Amino acid sequence: METKKVKIAVIGFGVVGSGVAKILQKNAEEITHKTGLQLKLAHVVDMDLVRPRPVTLPEGILHNDLEKVLSDDEVSIAVELVGGTEIAAEIQKKLLAAGKDVVTANKALLAERGEEIFETARQYNRCVSFEASCCGGIPVVSAIRTGLTANRISTMYGIVNGTCNYILSEMTESGKEYEVALKEAQAAGFAEADPTLDVNGSDSAHKLAILGLLAYGQKINYPDISTNGIENIQLTDIHYGKEMGYAMKLLAIAEQTDAGLSLRVHPSFINGHEPLAQASGPFNAVSIFGDAVGHTSYYGRGAGMMPTASAVVADIIDVARGNAQRVFDATPALGYITEPTVICQPEEIVSRFYLRLTVVDQPGVFAQIANVLGERKISISACLQHESKSDDRVPVVIMTHLARQGDMNKALEDMDKLDIVKEETICIHIVTPPKDG
Amino acid sequence: METKKVKIAVIGFGVVGSGVAKILQKNAEEITHKTGLQLKLAHVVDMDLVRPRPVTLPEGILHNDLEKVLSDDEVSIAVELVGGTEIAAEIQKKLLAAGKDVVTANKALLAERGEEIFETARQYNRCVSFEASCCGGIPVVSAIRTGLTANRISTMYGIVNGTCNYILSEMTESGKEYEVALKEAQAAGFAEADPTLDVNGSDSAHKLAILGLLAYGQKINYPDISTNGIENIQLTDIHYGKEMGYAMKLLAIAEQTDAGLSLRVHPSFINGHEPLAQASGPFNAVSIFGDAVGHTSYYGRGAGMMPTASAVVADIIDVARGNAQRVFDATPALGYITEPTVICQPEEIVSRFYLRLTVVDQPGVFAQIANVLGERKISISACLQHESKSDDRVPVVIMTHLARQGDMNKALEDMDKLDIVKEETICIHIVTPPKDG
Repeated sequence: METKKVKIAVIGFGVVGSGVAKILQKNAEEITHKTGLQLKLAHVVDMDLVRPRPVTLPEGILHNDLEKVLSDDEVSIAVELVGGTEIAAEIQKKLLAAGKDVVTANKALLAERGEEIFETARQYNRCVSFEASCCGGIPVVSAIRTGLTANRISTMYGIVNGTCNYILSEMTESGKEYEVALKEAQAAGFAEADPTLDVNGSDSAHKLAILGLLAYGQKINYPDISTNGIENIQLTDIHYGKEMGYAMKLLAIAEQTDAGLSLRVHPSFINGHEPLAQASGPFNAVSIFGDAVGHTSYYGRGAGMMPTASAVVADIIDVARGNAQRVFDATPALGYITEPTVICQPEEIVSRFYLRLTVVDQPGVFAQIANVLGERKISISACLQHESKSDDRVPVVIMTHLARQGDMNKALEDMDKLDIVKEETICIHIVTPPKDG
Repeated sequence: METKKVKIAVIGFGVVGSGVAKILQKNAEEITHKTGLQLKLAHVVDMDLVRPRPVTLPEGILHNDLEKVLSDDEVSIAVELVGGTEIAAEIQKKLLAAGKDVVTANKALLAERGEEIFETARQYNRCVSFEASCCGGIPVVSAIRTGLTANRISTMYGIVNGTCNYILSEMTESGKEYEVALKEAQAAGFAEADPTLDVNGSDSAHKLAILGLLAYGQKINYPDISTNGIENIQLTDIHYGKEMGYAMKLLAIAEQTDAGLSLRVHPSFINGHEPLAQASGPFNAVSIFGDAVGHTSYYGRGAGMMPTASAVVADIIDVARGNAQRVFDATPALGYITEPTVICQPEEIVSRFYLRLTVVDQPGVFAQIANVLGERKISISACLQHESKSDDRVPVVIMTHLARQGDMNKALEDMDKLDIVKEETICIHIVTPPKDG
């Protein structure tokens, strides 16, 4: 079998960049054996030339001059691992203009300014590959674009942020409070010093924008994603959910409804028997429901040096084979004009709900609550009230069957006006597979 | 975006063939939107032209003359869904010789006579695609060949036969005996009238041969796979395993060891917290461990009309894009001469084990058993003995840490010679993720 030499540049020599260099060194022979490609790292560009990294590059590879990459005509593939949305956009556009195909893990850039990047790629007949932007080493971008192409995707939901999943897992399994679990995640390297973009759901929303675009073939306007994080989750709700057989996860959800495409990120209970319930700690997992295939699910490490580098190198191989360009060219939501996406308003979504009410412990209380729910045609699937230790206030936990979000909002308003309800009612979505899934 | 017309022939109008026709009719617009391809079903060939099928074809599509396909130069892709290893091989070779790319779900043929088929494809510069041959709609072939290409795969194990998984799930969850669960699987359509190839592990071994070839880039000699089925599994072992936190699954396992590649199919206990433990009923799931990516797992329906057709149509699209040919051309174990695969002998594998001994209920019994294990350097990780109802014979269940299979075989021989051991000891593998997974 003949082999083909391919020269590569990596822009950004941080954690993932080091992982990419490691794989290209360590698995060079294996990759050539399995693909016929000889991948040669020709440039690594970074402002910082002295900081120690977990990999040693051959002399002359590391420098700080992007121009050298742009003018090296032998380099056909460039990997952007700088991050952020400003400088990275400039770099990607320069690389594309110089005739390089771009591989990137930059979800924020593609979610917020993807259109601009994809149009630039079209302009220069190049492609942008981004398996590493969603769920690290799990080949979920590839699953949607190739493995499931025959399907109409109805629903997709996933645990796509390892930081949040680590925190929620620690709260669930070890009974730690949110603040304690967050500090531990930071100490273990699973959360940044400033974890805001992770815990407030923004990072999950970035990934949802990318996966949604591929699954539905429609442009996604990032601000259309309704986003709630895990900052206000209370341990007591995790415990009640667990008692009832449910696990708390931060889910990124895309769902085709009669009222349009619903795109949302929020804390969710899922049944303990679902594949996603097994994804704990820093692991990610995504369930995708196709009309032909039914329920499929993908599990693995969603972040970290080597898992993310695994996805970057997979993309490099796909680009070097020439296959990435063909898939990119045919994907309508990448740089082509498409019909505007109809977005489902939050009130129109249909979901099951978990409610925790704080009520006075007196006869007739449950009837009043059930009455409010009944008026909005919301039916109860399970409830739980433990014998109270205090005399005045008791928690009542209710799980509902499917209900319209708008109806639930009104029921919540009515409920909290009742004299017997003493604190604002906690309401958390219960996410279930679509009926035909 | 321009669209490209592609004419397709389907040979074999059974369950999966009907599913393929259904998807091509129902999702035509969706597929064109997402891929730029117009897939046109031009021929469906079957001996039986009258049997009712769950899909209606346009006039003139269904006929029984393979020659018409071979001589139709507009048909570039042909799908072989005849099954079996004799006629199907002839059909595939004729199709390749006539310049058609072949898509197939035929695991038996590819496992047993793959070399012949792949060489024929090389000879005519065509490709053979077979996503549907393993795990139905789960894109696991694609995951290995594209998503995980950057990795050295250390270990791979999967639930790849839905019939066995349905039976084991019913035994586990509803406490049914093997024979009862098998009859129910037949009634529910999850098992054939003659279920031999499923329950004896052959079907799983076929899939392992194909997945192993892709994961390790080496030819797999099908008879090298050590294969045990589920026919002799006893309910009592499933119950003890469950009590200790383990689920019983029939696993197909490929593992790179110092002593070569181990390829085996056998009933196995896996920890209830593993992603595979959630795959119950007819679902399949595969865990793949790469040196960069770590543990990844893939879940979905492993058989059935629409899930299998989903994989067939994904392959059609991949072939029509021209991408399948490039990946096929570069895969060393498909039709090229490769180094002979070194196979790990069964005695050399290292595994944890579950043992159930039937012993007399008297002092010193446990010491004698522990002694036999200790002599072979096998250490006990857990044990279980319930208070006995009968006076003479009691079951003792032991789980071990990692041990060499050869040592375990000798320990079993020694154990069964002890006077206190009254029946042949049951020994079942406990499969665990590799250390660095």
